[in-house]
Amino acid sequence: MSDVLFDFDRRQRIGVDEAVLCERKTVAQIAAILEGARARDVGLLLTRCQPEQIDRLPKALAEATDYCPLSRTGFFGPVRPVRECGKVAIVAAGTSDTGVALEASRTLRHAGVEAALIADVGVAGLWRLMDRIEEIRRRPIVIAVAGMDAALASVVGGLTPAAVIAVPTSVGYGATEGGRTALNAMLASCAPGIVVCNIDNGYGAACSALRILNAMAGGIPSLLVGEG
Amino acid sequence: MSDVLFDFDRRQRIGVDEAVLCERKTVAQIAAILEGARARDVGLLLTRCQPEQIDRLPKALAEATDYCPLSRTGFFGPVRPVRECGKVAIVAAGTSDTGVALEASRTLRHAGVEAALIADVGVAGLWRLMDRIEEIRRRPIVIAVAGMDAALASVVGGLTPAAVIAVPTSVGYGATEGGRTALNAMLASCAPGIVVCNIDNGYGAACSALRILNAMAGGIPSLLVGEG
Amino acid sequence: MSDVLFDFDRRQRIGVDEAVLCERKTVAQIAAILEGARARDVGLLLTRCQPEQIDRLPKALAEATDYCPLSRTGFFGPVRPVRECGKVAIVAAGTSDTGVALEASRTLRHAGVEAALIADVGVAGLWRLMDRIEEIRRRPIVIAVAGMDAALASVVGGLTPAAVIAVPTSVGYGATEGGRTALNAMLASCAPGIVVCNIDNGYGAACSALRILNAMAGGIPSLLVGEG
Amino acid sequence: MSDVLFDFDRRQRIGVDEAVLCERKTVAQIAAILEGARARDVGLLLTRCQPEQIDRLPKALAEATDYCPLSRTGFFGPVRPVRECGKVAIVAAGTSDTGVALEASRTLRHAGVEAALIADVGVAGLWRLMDRIEEIRRRPIVIAVAGMDAALASVVGGLTPAAVIAVPTSVGYGATEGGRTALNAMLASCAPGIVVCNIDNGYGAACSALRILNAMAGGIPSLLVGEG
Amino acid sequence: MSDVLFDFDRRQRIGVDEAVLCERKTVAQIAAILEGARARDVGLLLTRCQPEQIDRLPKALAEATDYCPLSRTGFFGPVRPVRECGKVAIVAAGTSDTGVALEASRTLRHAGVEAALIADVGVAGLWRLMDRIEEIRRRPIVIAVAGMDAALASVVGGLTPAAVIAVPTSVGYGATEGGRTALNAMLASCAPGIVVCNIDNGYGAACSALRILNAMAGGIPSLLVGEG
Amino acid sequence: MSDVLFDFDRRQRIGVDEAVLCERKTVAQIAAILEGARARDVGLLLTRCQPEQIDRLPKALAEATDYCPLSRTGFFGPVRPVRECGKVAIVAAGTSDTGVALEASRTLRHAGVEAALIADVGVAGLWRLMDRIEEIRRRPIVIAVAGMDAALASVVGGLTPAAVIAVPTSVGYGATEGGRTALNAMLASCAPGIVVCNIDNGYGAACSALRILNAMAGGIPSLLVGEG
Amino acid sequence: MSDVLFDFDRRQRIGVDEAVLCERKTVAQIAAILEGARARDVGLLLTRCQPEQIDRLPKALAEATDYCPLSRTGFFGPVRPVRECGKVAIVAAGTSDTGVALEASRTLRHAGVEAALIADVGVAGLWRLMDRIEEIRRRPIVIAVAGMDAALASVVGGLTPAAVIAVPTSVGYGATEGGRTALNAMLASCAPGIVVCNIDNGYGAACSALRILNAMAGGIPSLLVGEG
Amino acid sequence: MSDVLFDFDRRQRIGVDEAVLCERKTVAQIAAILEGARARDVGLLLTRCQPEQIDRLPKALAEATDYCPLSRTGFFGPVRPVRECGKVAIVAAGTSDTGVALEASRTLRHAGVEAALIADVGVAGLWRLMDRIEEIRRRPIVIAVAGMDAALASVVGGLTPAAVIAVPTSVGYGATEGGRTALNAMLASCAPGIVVCNIDNGYGAACSALRILNAMAGGIPSLLVGEG
Repeated sequence: MSDVLFDFDRRQRIGVDEAVLCERKTVAQIAAILEGARARDVGLLLTRCQPEQIDRLPKALAEATDYCPLSRTGFFGPVRPVRECGKVAIVAAGTSDTGVALEASRTLRHAGVEAALIADVGVAGLWRLMDRIEEIRRRPIVIAVAGMDAALASVVGGLTPAAVIAVPTSVGYGATEGGRTALNAMLASCAPGIVVCNIDNGYGAACSALRILNAMAGGIPSLLVGEG
Repeated sequence: MSDVLFDFDRRQRIGVDEAVLCERKTVAQIAAILEGARARDVGLLLTRCQPEQIDRLPKALAEATDYCPLSRTGFFGPVRPVRECGKVAIVAAGTSDTGVALEASRTLRHAGVEAALIADVGVAGLWRLMDRIEEIRRRPIVIAVAGMDAALASVVGGLTPAAVIAVPTSVGYGATEGGRTALNAMLASCAPGIVVCNIDNGYGAACSALRILNAMAGGIPSLLVGEG
Repeated sequence: MSDVLFDFDRRQRIGVDEAVLCERKTVAQIAAILEGARARDVGLLLTRCQPEQIDRLPKALAEATDYCPLSRTGFFGPVRPVRECGKVAIVAAGTSDTGVALEASRTLRHAGVEAALIADVGVAGLWRLMDRIEEIRRRPIVIAVAGMDAALASVVGGLTPAAVIAVPTSVGYGATEGGRTALNAMLASCAPGIVVCNIDNGYGAACSALRILNAMAGGIPSLLVGEG
Repeated sequence: MSDVLFDFDRRQRIGVDEAVLCERKTVAQIAAILEGARARDVGLLLTRCQPEQIDRLPKALAEATDYCPLSRTGFFGPVRPVRECGKVAIVAAGTSDTGVALEASRTLRHAGVEAALIADVGVAGLWRLMDRIEEIRRRPIVIAVAGMDAALASVVGGLTPAAVIAVPTSVGYGATEGGRTALNAMLASCAPGIVVCNIDNGYGAACSALRILNAMAGGIPSLLVGEG
Repeated sequence: MSDVLFDFDRRQRIGVDEAVLCERKTVAQIAAILEGARARDVGLLLTRCQPEQIDRLPKALAEATDYCPLSRTGFFGPVRPVRECGKVAIVAAGTSDTGVALEASRTLRHAGVEAALIADVGVAGLWRLMDRIEEIRRRPIVIAVAGMDAALASVVGGLTPAAVIAVPTSVGYGATEGGRTALNAMLASCAPGIVVCNIDNGYGAACSALRILNAMAGGIPSLLVGEG
Repeated sequence: MSDVLFDFDRRQRIGVDEAVLCERKTVAQIAAILEGARARDVGLLLTRCQPEQIDRLPKALAEATDYCPLSRTGFFGPVRPVRECGKVAIVAAGTSDTGVALEASRTLRHAGVEAALIADVGVAGLWRLMDRIEEIRRRPIVIAVAGMDAALASVVGGLTPAAVIAVPTSVGYGATEGGRTALNAMLASCAPGIVVCNIDNGYGAACSALRILNAMAGGIPSLLVGEG
Repeated sequence: MSDVLFDFDRRQRIGVDEAVLCERKTVAQIAAILEGARARDVGLLLTRCQPEQIDRLPKALAEATDYCPLSRTGFFGPVRPVRECGKVAIVAAGTSDTGVALEASRTLRHAGVEAALIADVGVAGLWRLMDRIEEIRRRPIVIAVAGMDAALASVVGGLTPAAVIAVPTSVGYGATEGGRTALNAMLASCAPGIVVCNIDNGYGAACSALRILNAMAGGIPSLLVGEG
Repeated sequence: MSDVLFDFDRRQRIGVDEAVLCERKTVAQIAAILEGARARDVGLLLTRCQPEQIDRLPKALAEATDYCPLSRTGFFGPVRPVRECGKVAIVAAGTSDTGVALEASRTLRHAGVEAALIADVGVAGLWRLMDRIEEIRRRPIVIAVAGMDAALASVVGGLTPAAVIAVPTSVGYGATEGGRTALNAMLASCAPGIVVCNIDNGYGAACSALRILNAMAGGIPSLLVGEG
């Protein structure tokens, strides 16, 4: 009953890799999935993976994992070569938003997409954003990561005609309401056409960018990553 | 102090038309904007416009407006010719979601984009969706409009690799929480990469689709509609 | 004052066994109840019982408990023989929902009812559900367990005329609101006649199924399990 | 675009009649559906239908409708003969809960099920409930309708082994939170196995009872009513 | 700056003892207050005091404290002799509500009032309450402690003309909303004239009972306990 | 089904008059109750009664009603003579709180209790309260009515040892949250032993005062008013 | 009981004029206050005054009122001469925020302070704000009025060292939550030292500016306006 | 990617020091910032810094930090000499509010402003506030810190014409809603012109006071502290 049936054949059916959401999984469950992947020589993306989970994996599996503690993501086994570059910019407002921005960036990289990460451009110091705006405007897809008042998404949305995907973060206390204030502010943005992901969901923003890249590639789906 | 300064020059600066959000505007304010547009021979999109507002406009202005009461939108003056066709599908779950779906469809049409509207495909009768799924899968951009449990967005998101923009609606009572349940369910969707607009915001979903069409067109921005 | 007076005589009065809700009980309190049950040769169901609680019980009591860590339930002493089979299906959307599904399944089993557990059939991969739908439709009672967007309940409700009991789970983060989004989505389901239990309450769903089995059995109450 | 495509063939496919949810429908839309039903000689149930909607219908259609203002329901055309009697009790706490109780009762009647309606048995005057409890206990299905503190559902749930379907109502002000307090109290009930419908959803409770009657009838689905 | 200035003279000014709210106080702060009380030979009531706080106190102070872990209260130094008996009943619904009921009972005892504590009379098993109702009805003041659906307060309120003080508890999960459901249900009670305290606030309920005893004593204030 | 069965015999059974809650009742229902009362020569209290309801009553009934539009209460038929005086003070913070204060005052008067109403003593102008504080302190029961920040209840609670019943009002906008802020502030009051009623529930506060007067009268219940 | 006792002597006691909050006041109550003011030759500020209230006043009173429908404020009788100029800037994001901005501006003007009102500078079109930023930076006090995402407050707060008072507005729908999103975003602003008023409370922002002007004037209080 | 780029040059550009918000920063990140500051001989303010973070710093850095555990703030390196005295009073309601009050006081001190801290003046014991009111009224800026019912802010706001900055605290349980009740009560205060900071944000209140001191100093900005 408690086995995790990981869907290694999914790519063949719908062109989608499944990612391994480590939250609420035991180390034994994760190890079993990784060993299955190794047997098939398949690369996997781990998300929401705590350092303690990596530390308690069998040594061979842990060492075969390229783990990033800030984003809590891991690459296990082969990683796709870069196939897209210069299409996606990820902008993040504050130091504390970097982890979520990196989750988006690493999810894209695992799917073969290199994104530019532009951090620490919160609008309370507007000149920081203005120094980088031309670089941002050159990309057709922009992921905007911000917590607290989330004002970055509105300002960026008003400065670029790109597809803008906003990710609220749970940074802060009190009136930030665990990210719900940022979420609502992005949904209510005065800049038209901004769309929004769940709180702290850098992974989902990357998947949305992959869907848009699918659209840009003319209907032949690139490999979209699913999380299971 | 109470004049509305409408930004007719916006298109030149950032390639964006401004739409006229009629909610909380007086009839006199709307009439002044329409007359300004007529003087410049500019076409305008009216959104959230009540029938009573149209009825109380000066007759010449009202007659020059192609008004749709279900979506509460109006086209005033010249409308762009169709320049894109076959790229966007709009799917709607129930009869009551049609107004929001039409707001999206009409916003796109005003910007020169013809979308397919596929209504009444809520998942409580799954065969209705399945009858239309091939038609949906042919489009690189899908707007999914649903209220109540909003399950349509998740099911569609699992069946197409397209860019999926979800719009929650305020249909229903009690536990629907005025659309917040649908909004949250879409944000928490088990299908990866779905992005979400504000409740009932068909206009915003269309703007997001226009941004993605910008991206697909290779960086030369098509005209994105802003709402003021 | 602090003694727990366990109601061993309840079955005689109203045909209901009382289950032992271990949450907020001390190990000493649980041990006292188990010893009371052993003295009377009564079987007990433990719910919401942490592994640490089992580990700290006197060894004889722990060993006499058939404990399942995923569902956090335990069978202590004699278990009723199976008296019903083929009446109840339990369907669960994701791996993380399995614990709640097992709580329902084990509660039913303790009362002598064998249910079919069909896991990992979330609607983001609709084919998984469709592969099992005939098996589901053969049962007059279906318990649907799902978190996040909870779309499984609506899809199942539209595919079977059975009694459908929906159980939201607290899986996820951000807009899942600790299970409240799934709860509200199930209450607002577009499939008519779905009824809902509290978040993560697999035990309550099983009790509701037992009540329906009572009704099906023609008014002679089967033994319904209460939790104290 | 604005036509309502009513699903008159649904019964043949899945054994379900569709009810006409009048909320948010125009009188013209309702009239079109009724005329379609008349042409096919099909009976229809109208729900959430305001007196003003009936008053503005063409006279022939209005006169062919057996309308009940307290429950805001209407029977249009032929009604099924009674096929079940003595299986369902509907208990309601206060005078203001009667409308919702009647919505349940009338939905059942339209599907051929006669229910006993026991009103005004709120627990603040416990003797009122106790005077009727034997009558309630004789039914295998009980629908409990209550607003405010919703204590009726818990008390009834502790006194009968029947299937108990609880319906919270939006009666009251302030801390009743538009029915959410009653909803949550029913979900958190100390009586095990109570299941809950959306606020004011007497129609949904009746559909759930019909599903249980399906189960009791041995798998041959009776006609379940859907609302569109 | 960080000294706690305890108000030992309060009784002289307004006839009120101050209790020591231990939550968010360091052990050093508590010890200082207790030593101040010892020097003045004043008795103190400790509330919300964790076992670890007692354990880490200097041994002499810990031993001089009559500590009750279930209610997390302590009596330090002299306790008032009993001056009132038979006026207050405390009824509690479930085992998990006992801690809060004891907090009320011990606060009253510290002020010289002996209350009857009647536990485990939740309404899901109505006969348990009915066995004790005459005993309850003999008291002019009733404190009703209940979590989850809080139905006990309404039922008791309908059975006695006494002053009824309701205390919601945070017992439970999901739809109990940390006690807010019980709180709202008590505020919305269908039994008239019930008044309500903050969640888990057994101390506050006791203070309210002391205020009513003041009123009953004819305006000469008994000593009311304040918490600082 | 739609008849309102008014409980004219309640007083004999439990010493409680039932009040007529006019909200959600039709004029016909109210008229029927009043005529029933007239036939029995019983006096009734009407609560939450709109002026339009009075205006549309048969003239004879309207003229026999002593109606107060500010409190939306009416006295129909004989009123009890005053039997208590000087026991209850009602304090209200602002002009907009007066209606709720009057509902409490009139409910008490109908039951034969004369209360002192002290209005417009909000703490933003502390001297207004201080001018009246001696008058307030002479009463053993104080009802404190306030909206917005509800600070009046805490200040009064700190100045009198009386039984303090706090009533939050729905006055204000934005952060007042329809009275929930005042409700929560009163529940969280820093003055110990304050108890709280539902928002705008002056009637409930009066019933609570009647219960305390019962207690003060030594167990022989005065007539407590119930609302049906 | 229902008289409104207006505090015409307040200025003498605490240097504060009382404003007339017209919401929830009858026309008769307002007329009585205005006549009292006229008899004393005192000027009054009316706030939250609907056009219908002005229309139904006795003609002489209405004509003596300088009424502004956008801000729903009125000046009755003598207005203070301008005594401060160049100290306060009021910036507003969108057309719909202008009413609240005018309420602030008119409240200041009534107290003798001339403020600069800079409207339509929402950050979705950042150049609009940048065109006016030097003008804004010259003022030591800035009131920032914005709804929806409220990003204007953060951007302004990062560009000026002035005292910044933020006023959220209730403009918008869905995720704007009636202004709560803007309120929370302002409280959680990434620009340090921004303070916030209640939703739509232009009057309160002006009072806060008057308090700061008091501070700047060296402790001799200017006349602060209170609202009653 | 994970480096923290601290903005040591900010003061030159906009006259603002950046503070070090330690929450969610690793000890290594904090150490790197402190070493950067030491190399430049710049003084820094640490906020929301846990004792464990200080304990795990390299010894030389820890010893160079003047750390206050109650306010969780630290002064690293040179501190500005006092340049303002007698302008700011900080009043705090209860013992548990002192930490937040100290955060405000220490932030001001680091910027060269000496404030008077007046603690333990909650309004439940009004005489405590009255004993200090003249001292409070002498200051042109008052910071009012309070949790629970937050009534202190309204009472103080009614007693002084100063600029009043209210800081809600998260002290308490249940209906305090983690400080949201205090926050809302302060926003809805009946005393006009009170402005509010985020929950527990003593740092923000101090920054606001610095902005007002800027205004009082005649437009030459004093150094305002930003938090990064």
